[in-house]
Amino acid sequence: MVDVLGFDADDTLWHNERHYRHAQKQLEELLHPYASPERVQEVLLEHEHANIPFYGYGVKGFVLSMIETMLELSHDAIPAADIGKIVAQARHMLSVDVELMPGVSTLLEDLSDSYDILVITKGDLLDQRSKMDRSGLGKYVSRIEVISEKTPAAYREVLTRHNIQPDQFIMVGNSLRSDILPVLEIGGGAVYIPSELQWDHELVEDPHLDGYHQLESIRELPSLLALLDSRT
Amino acid sequence: MVDVLGFDADDTLWHNERHYRHAQKQLEELLHPYASPERVQEVLLEHEHANIPFYGYGVKGFVLSMIETMLELSHDAIPAADIGKIVAQARHMLSVDVELMPGVSTLLEDLSDSYDILVITKGDLLDQRSKMDRSGLGKYVSRIEVISEKTPAAYREVLTRHNIQPDQFIMVGNSLRSDILPVLEIGGGAVYIPSELQWDHELVEDPHLDGYHQLESIRELPSLLALLDSRT
Repeated sequence: MVDVLGFDADDTLWHNERHYRHAQKQLEELLHPYASPERVQEVLLEHEHANIPFYGYGVKGFVLSMIETMLELSHDAIPAADIGKIVAQARHMLSVDVELMPGVSTLLEDLSDSYDILVITKGDLLDQRSKMDRSGLGKYVSRIEVISEKTPAAYREVLTRHNIQPDQFIMVGNSLRSDILPVLEIGGGAVYIPSELQWDHELVEDPHLDGYHQLESIRELPSLLALLDSRT
Repeated sequence: MVDVLGFDADDTLWHNERHYRHAQKQLEELLHPYASPERVQEVLLEHEHANIPFYGYGVKGFVLSMIETMLELSHDAIPAADIGKIVAQARHMLSVDVELMPGVSTLLEDLSDSYDILVITKGDLLDQRSKMDRSGLGKYVSRIEVISEKTPAAYREVLTRHNIQPDQFIMVGNSLRSDILPVLEIGGGAVYIPSELQWDHELVEDPHLDGYHQLESIRELPSLLALLDSRT
């Protein structure tokens, strides 16, 4: 019987990717004299991938990867002031208002009556906790777990630490790679809610997997949970 | 009776500040045409302070603060290639070998027979876990807790989560501000081991406090613990 729900945070509970896209748009404009927008996207993604083992996920590493992209594509010819505009994105992205997905607040309030709710996210520790504080959702959540990488081992470690069996647990998120595949692998349940915007790094080609549920909107979650509950 | 030891990581278990000083030295050299080393230090510390609520602690935020310092002191006249040299510091600092303080490995191995050992640190999640992996100390440590800020509330939360009473707990670290004061405040014990190099942000002026123990080297810790144990 499922009594613990795990929620991804970015682009599941609140918008996030749009702020990354906005910053990337500015990067493309600043690099216009040196490279096409497509080339900027390509080189930026290369830097982001190469940097993940060092920087991890989150705004600060993203901004450092954007600066590396500027230096590479301009062959160090970019004016320092333009780099300053990208550095300013870090402060902006780390303090911008948290925009919840529609209906999320009521949803978590209702679900918290029947389920223990964990938020399991990657990214920068301080930024994720700060967004949780600013979101007003903290009161419905028993714990926020910020982890470096969403691997099966990392999910197993979180569940063990909270004394949760995998068959008691359903994870809800917008990334097949991070929220769905690893949880299915350890025997948990998973609900995939694709988001409008998705970071290329999170895409999985042709995952060939089943056993998870897919919803159009997080607002459909209570009906799905009721259905699952009626079957057990 | 004390049966849980908490250890700070940076500049308590392994060297850290020296890598920050090395990077800062390079910053001073690159900014030589624009400002004195003293002015660079002053402006860098201002940026670091102002950025902590947004960036938190750790290498990535430090590098972003160094870039802001370059832009400010050069009035955006710094060549992009020089900014590139500072960005390269991020990768370097995040992958440099972990140099343990002398005797730390044997010390933790011995202490782990009699005490439960936690490592409680702030900074970037991925970087701190990666350093712990590279340090080889993981096998003596029951858990590493990376927290955003070392406040009394944060320590209380960690202890509660692990079912530890404050009087069972002693924290060992090199910062009065982060490792000693907040732990005394919640009723735990504390051992202060000043480090050779200390970040100005961690300094506390004239703390007027007692109730903690001070050692010259972490190697003196077993004797102190034996003495404390004999008194209870």
